[in-house]
Amino acid sequence: MRSRPVQTRPAIGVFDSGTGGLTLVREIMRQLPDEPVIYFGDTARVPYGSKSPETVIRFSLEDAAFLLGKGIRLLVAACNTASSVSMPALREYSSVPVVGVIEPGAMAAAKATRTGIVGVIGTNGTISSGAYQKALRDAGGIKAVIAQPCPLLVPLVEEGWLDHRITVEIVEEYMAPLIRERIDTLVLGCTHYPLLKSVFSQVMGPGVTLVDSAESTVSAVREILGAAGGAGGAEAPPEHAFYVSDIPLKFQEIAQRFLGRSIPLVTQVEVGDA
Amino acid sequence: MRSRPVQTRPAIGVFDSGTGGLTLVREIMRQLPDEPVIYFGDTARVPYGSKSPETVIRFSLEDAAFLLGKGIRLLVAACNTASSVSMPALREYSSVPVVGVIEPGAMAAAKATRTGIVGVIGTNGTISSGAYQKALRDAGGIKAVIAQPCPLLVPLVEEGWLDHRITVEIVEEYMAPLIRERIDTLVLGCTHYPLLKSVFSQVMGPGVTLVDSAESTVSAVREILGAAGGAGGAEAPPEHAFYVSDIPLKFQEIAQRFLGRSIPLVTQVEVGDA
Repeated sequence: MRSRPVQTRPAIGVFDSGTGGLTLVREIMRQLPDEPVIYFGDTARVPYGSKSPETVIRFSLEDAAFLLGKGIRLLVAACNTASSVSMPALREYSSVPVVGVIEPGAMAAAKATRTGIVGVIGTNGTISSGAYQKALRDAGGIKAVIAQPCPLLVPLVEEGWLDHRITVEIVEEYMAPLIRERIDTLVLGCTHYPLLKSVFSQVMGPGVTLVDSAESTVSAVREILGAAGGAGGAEAPPEHAFYVSDIPLKFQEIAQRFLGRSIPLVTQVEVGDA
Repeated sequence: MRSRPVQTRPAIGVFDSGTGGLTLVREIMRQLPDEPVIYFGDTARVPYGSKSPETVIRFSLEDAAFLLGKGIRLLVAACNTASSVSMPALREYSSVPVVGVIEPGAMAAAKATRTGIVGVIGTNGTISSGAYQKALRDAGGIKAVIAQPCPLLVPLVEEGWLDHRITVEIVEEYMAPLIRERIDTLVLGCTHYPLLKSVFSQVMGPGVTLVDSAESTVSAVREILGAAGGAGGAEAPPEHAFYVSDIPLKFQEIAQRFLGRSIPLVTQVEVGDA
């Protein structure tokens, strides 16, 4: 017989197009160690970053429906592409508060920049949506935004070439226009990019601040939970649950890279028809 | 009033995980100019090459169900990953003959090699399935097969870096073990790779024959149609139809790259539940 109490505290629901959102779960575990998390990664349909806004919205609503069915207290869209096009639809659909990564990332960049010249990088879908560009302009104090899609960086991270010579060369190529425009702050607008932080630091130099929106997004989550009087003070360590729509080759290896620890039991589910 | 006769000849159905299978459609148009083609590209769920065999089989059956519903006379799995894991399931499921790309590619390689040392490259899914390795051994006369997954090449082609310096460097890195083993024949086991033929030629040198399985697959299709007394002799030019599950950013540009001409009207459909 197990004496551990049954988990009754409602969880934070986090969805992502795949495994990259585990970087945000890792940040929740750091900032909010008492909060249980239910994660859903749409690994059967990953990536979202190259697909149309209509399809990404449909997938996001299906992912949200799955998590809402688990009785979550708050929904986080960890995927930058999903956040950049799906927030209005998610907020209309969801019965609990929804947090995306775009606004917190933009706010953090606005706080960090001294010159007001900010760069943002992401998938084709994220950058062409213009969501970061708008959020940065709305954040105030920003004079120029240089946006650059970097579609090769996700495959490089998934291939595990985190400090490979070729990865440095590709980052140099993508960063050239941002260096030319003398940005002093760079928003890492994709869950995969924080794993390349050391490459970005090397290429951009010490004068450029890197903004990882996972950190600021979890701060936003903490504020909402704090306002609702719910954060902290659990008696037992939280029990997390991980769901994916596919368990592909190298899943454990890739998931561990993002979560920073070996991923516990994962359940495969099918989602669809929100 | 259009005087063109209504298309009554049943079409060849071709499915792929995305747009890459258009290289095979291009080859059908070249070898079998009278045959109408119905194409389905699962662009909402692309790629298949990083996903589990179970998920790829499920997607393949759903794709096949869509095309069979259109009254096709023959089904071609243009996607190497789908071909490498789904052929038994597709053959059991389909009411018309099914042609994959693995066996024709392996036969062509067996014919081309002089030393019997053959290399094969593909997605993680294709290579880890072992399907090419088995088909090459079964083809006879082959002494050694060196198989190499190249997951970065599809994103590079989709990014349009077809003759980029960095693409050459990545191909050099992937090809190093195949050069070391002195292969004399290289099977391009993914629909995207023929677009990098000049890079492969440059890296491998003139002593290595490149095998594009689209060519040999369409030869196999021609044989089946010929045996059924159906190839050639149409009165009007064939009318092709193109379906996809998503029309993403840059779709026209990417599709044109594979088809070698601008793609005509494309219809977006949802598939699922085979």
